[in-house]
Amino acid sequence: MNVIELTPPYLIFLGDVTTMTYAKTGAGLAQWRPELCAGQLSLVTGGVDLGLPAMTVAEAKAQGVRSLVVGTASVGGGIQPSWESTLVEAAEAGLDIVAGLHVRLASNARLATAAKASGVRLVDVRIPPADLPVGTGKKRSGMRLLTMGTDCAVGKKYTALALEAAMRDAGMAASFRASGQTGVMIAGEGLPIDAVVADFISGAAELLSPDNAPDHWDIIEGQGALTHPGYAAVTTGLLLGSQPDAFVVCHEAGRSQVSGWEDYPLPSIDEIIQRTVAVGSITNPGIHCVGVSVNTSTLAPDERRPYLEQLERELGLPCVDPLIDGMAAIVERLRLETNSASAREAGAAL
Amino acid sequence: MNVIELTPPYLIFLGDVTTMTYAKTGAGLAQWRPELCAGQLSLVTGGVDLGLPAMTVAEAKAQGVRSLVVGTASVGGGIQPSWESTLVEAAEAGLDIVAGLHVRLASNARLATAAKASGVRLVDVRIPPADLPVGTGKKRSGMRLLTMGTDCAVGKKYTALALEAAMRDAGMAASFRASGQTGVMIAGEGLPIDAVVADFISGAAELLSPDNAPDHWDIIEGQGALTHPGYAAVTTGLLLGSQPDAFVVCHEAGRSQVSGWEDYPLPSIDEIIQRTVAVGSITNPGIHCVGVSVNTSTLAPDERRPYLEQLERELGLPCVDPLIDGMAAIVERLRLETNSASAREAGAAL
Repeated sequence: MNVIELTPPYLIFLGDVTTMTYAKTGAGLAQWRPELCAGQLSLVTGGVDLGLPAMTVAEAKAQGVRSLVVGTASVGGGIQPSWESTLVEAAEAGLDIVAGLHVRLASNARLATAAKASGVRLVDVRIPPADLPVGTGKKRSGMRLLTMGTDCAVGKKYTALALEAAMRDAGMAASFRASGQTGVMIAGEGLPIDAVVADFISGAAELLSPDNAPDHWDIIEGQGALTHPGYAAVTTGLLLGSQPDAFVVCHEAGRSQVSGWEDYPLPSIDEIIQRTVAVGSITNPGIHCVGVSVNTSTLAPDERRPYLEQLERELGLPCVDPLIDGMAAIVERLRLETNSASAREAGAAL
Repeated sequence: MNVIELTPPYLIFLGDVTTMTYAKTGAGLAQWRPELCAGQLSLVTGGVDLGLPAMTVAEAKAQGVRSLVVGTASVGGGIQPSWESTLVEAAEAGLDIVAGLHVRLASNARLATAAKASGVRLVDVRIPPADLPVGTGKKRSGMRLLTMGTDCAVGKKYTALALEAAMRDAGMAASFRASGQTGVMIAGEGLPIDAVVADFISGAAELLSPDNAPDHWDIIEGQGALTHPGYAAVTTGLLLGSQPDAFVVCHEAGRSQVSGWEDYPLPSIDEIIQRTVAVGSITNPGIHCVGVSVNTSTLAPDERRPYLEQLERELGLPCVDPLIDGMAAIVERLRLETNSASAREAGAAL
């Protein structure tokens, strides 16, 4: 009973894709976890280049690579015929094969046979482990932050990763915790929470951020939105199981409707703050908002600063575009909170 | 892409159980759908008696029975060795086999072979159909009521079934809609919503109560509680997908903690009303509470009436114990609402 775990270092497999749009997972790994990416393997000339050393399976094996990670989307969602011999070669060479395809890796007979023969794992990051627990609601040690959103695809994963990086730069103990398949590949562990059976959503969320040191922050990747007509159940279970002390609301400036659900107007940031506190306080009465992270790329360049300043005045919270401002303002607030918590902890120990 | 459906009439299979506690599903069927239950089959003398005609598989077949329904729980959750030959005989005779066991019926090789040979279905009511949709949030015609709860096991299924019966007695069009395995067996169709993958909870809930006549009420069986640390995600998705116009809160008098989650105090009925309106209004702004259904069996007989009267004064809503008072007070309120809605409909058509 545990989360999905990958074994680094990785060889990032890029198949035959030639545009970055189809290699987002590989690009995310190279951006956020370069120290775990030993090399890249493209099957074509003019293929996507993540800036990693190009290597064959044999070279990767010789350099100690432990897993081949499929870093591309595929037409139809399965293993492309052109990929098969390379994946089989990697499995035979003793590398785990990791992918987030719509079909199980083991459904490819040659790959299944090769993996069995060499004792490597075929890791499907879309498929949660069996035997997940029901949520207990019990408090865990350490501190937690969850990214919430006004909608899907508003930067919840990016914000969590940027927060982790900025907090580590500031000397704080922070771990990104992945709740979606791309996040799981980047973090090297986690659970695709949207694929968990309903009864176990908050239990799975509890597994994502286990007990930790008192001043350690888990920065948990959010999913969906509490007001989303399709996905709010996922968001609710993730919120209750995460038991966050703090949350950041993510938003895309100018979006006015739920993307793909055009009958539904987008909730305001303030509505998301209020609903997050109302639901989150069930399992953590101390929950509060520490900032807002906005993608302002849809605004004209001279509108961005006034937009964020207006938002700060309305909400009384640091409001940043992570690509422009970085995360310093939100991290500073968290740092102060961690110091206060440590002081309380020390006081309690006297 | 649809709900699970059973084919009546039924032969209720009671295995070798001798106490009603282990035959709740069979008892529920005999109580709420006697017209669909042709007979019962017990393997032992002194077995549970549901008051139905005792019959063998051959007799059931001769009388036109279409499905054998396993109406008992089983030790270990699977097909008991002592059951096997009867279930195989029924499958060979052309009866569907229906059960809510923890293992798939088809995992029994003899039964799988018999079912395949005679072309009958093995229906596992714990297992949702594949290819469920994501919730659309689109409004459907007809009216809907969902039973909510302060906790699990506070009478949400019973209240929904009692409401359906009372509404039909009052000449209203009403259909019980099942969201749990026992409910699915009683209704003859439905979905075990707690077994659905997270992304599809509200989509599954939408399938449960499709478009209907304007004055028709779907009475939907609720699950969990919006404040439950383990199951609130299920409750949230069911609420959003059901889009209820009305809801009834179910409660057990005297319960002070979430059953099995002793760190969590039970929410008040009023808190559940407020939270249900807050979440339910996302997909149906007209949602409102029409009554409270309380199991008062934990109170002394002379405390029950004062308890319900006090609750009515506090909440301004009909508050009943369905076993003592029946559902007349709540049905009367719904009847008035249906008449108003029909009047509005007629007015709009002029």
